[in-house]
Amino acid sequence: MKREHKEEMKRRARNICLLVAYDGTAYHGFQRQTPPVVAVQNVLENSLSRVFGDAVELAAAGRTDAGVHAAGQVVNFFTDGTIPVERVPRAVNSLLPPDIVVCRAFEADWNFSALHSAKEKTYRYRILTGETPSPFLCRYAWHIRQPLDTAAIETALVSLLGEHDFSSFRAAGGAPMSPVRTMKRAECVRGGRELSFVFAADGFLYHMVRNIIGTLVDVGRGVLLPAEFAAILEAKDRQRAGATAPACGLCLTRVEYDADWYEPPEDFEPQGLRTS
Amino acid sequence: MKREHKEEMKRRARNICLLVAYDGTAYHGFQRQTPPVVAVQNVLENSLSRVFGDAVELAAAGRTDAGVHAAGQVVNFFTDGTIPVERVPRAVNSLLPPDIVVCRAFEADWNFSALHSAKEKTYRYRILTGETPSPFLCRYAWHIRQPLDTAAIETALVSLLGEHDFSSFRAAGGAPMSPVRTMKRAECVRGGRELSFVFAADGFLYHMVRNIIGTLVDVGRGVLLPAEFAAILEAKDRQRAGATAPACGLCLTRVEYDADWYEPPEDFEPQGLRTS
Repeated sequence: MKREHKEEMKRRARNICLLVAYDGTAYHGFQRQTPPVVAVQNVLENSLSRVFGDAVELAAAGRTDAGVHAAGQVVNFFTDGTIPVERVPRAVNSLLPPDIVVCRAFEADWNFSALHSAKEKTYRYRILTGETPSPFLCRYAWHIRQPLDTAAIETALVSLLGEHDFSSFRAAGGAPMSPVRTMKRAECVRGGRELSFVFAADGFLYHMVRNIIGTLVDVGRGVLLPAEFAAILEAKDRQRAGATAPACGLCLTRVEYDADWYEPPEDFEPQGLRTS
Repeated sequence: MKREHKEEMKRRARNICLLVAYDGTAYHGFQRQTPPVVAVQNVLENSLSRVFGDAVELAAAGRTDAGVHAAGQVVNFFTDGTIPVERVPRAVNSLLPPDIVVCRAFEADWNFSALHSAKEKTYRYRILTGETPSPFLCRYAWHIRQPLDTAAIETALVSLLGEHDFSSFRAAGGAPMSPVRTMKRAECVRGGRELSFVFAADGFLYHMVRNIIGTLVDVGRGVLLPAEFAAILEAKDRQRAGATAPACGLCLTRVEYDADWYEPPEDFEPQGLRTS
């Protein structure tokens, strides 16, 4: 968005913030694409423009890739539309396809930006292990036949905590921003045949979680030692890390802001295997 | 299947039983359809025929409708194919689309029939209540905005237990078999915004679970009293029951047999909302 255009947008009367969930399977990522390629942003902006009566342009907390899901994406936009904020979710959802849902709408402070005001983001990555895939998880988890050594994975995870230069896990095509991020949570929980990873940080580089997961799976398979994983992080060299894990396992679950009007999401993500 | 054809099939060397899971969203039910309409049976028979080298014809425990899922469907077929039974799941799954999965294969007794030998079947039905739908549950649960009175629903459920003539919950187009069934479990569990119903019986009539759910939702909404629900069951009159609930919420989770070689399924069904 050009500066003048941005200034024009900010002359509008309201700054609206939305909590959005989507199943990313059918979309070419979040970020707006040129039709016939369809991204979540295209669909969401079309519906919002109809509800608010002006051309809506969204800024989003996270630009999720094609096939990546969101249980707690946050967006904001400026509008002169007059619909009361509490009526927004139902009005927009009635126009949206069932795989995109507006969960909450907030009247945001004037200077709030879903992208720039974000203090912390949380991503979850799901892996289904074992011989048999699941027809219910094929859209939401990476299926790996081989058993994974979770103790080794947990040891490797510890090395991610704190402030690091994450260049080793950054995609080649990433934007030229600083590769230094602070990792606040890096956890792996096993539930039956499912491994669920949670990563929380002040920000993530392009493909960072998927590259970390690809390398952690090498640790779980015994191809890499936990100490080698730590050395890869310290090397700041993408060539040394593992493959990029599939998009389907990844979900943006939560974004934190310092704003008293904001409430983080109820966790909408589907669970894995039920053992009842 | 005509009798002579059935006899021909039974001259084959082996009777193979499969535990099958599928996401029914993309299929016109389980039962074989004339192309271009595609049912789960068409896809499964094509893949099995390639693996076993003869024309496979399946019998199934439950003929699930269009959009209905299965976590524990059971099928059997006669074949002269020689592939060892333990290699069957991986061989067939490599040919199947990701929304249909063969979980287990068994060498069955000669007289075993997935349909006729079934002792008990279990279905689950999921409802998501509350204002906001979920993009992750839209394929797997009926979304109802209004809160439902679970205490009233639980009272109504008790009247279903035991042997009854279930004509009130039988679809008009059902086959002319006896409407008497024995209900062994009829339960409703609340987890967050989700209601999960479990029904186990010696058999189910066409649309029986979906018609029961449609009527129970009337009880939950306060449109019907639990005593009126019991009276509808006793009336043996389809005209008096509620609407048929949507297919997407329904899943065939388990079939029981008296056979020492058979192991009921690991529960593959996806769970609902995670509140972590």
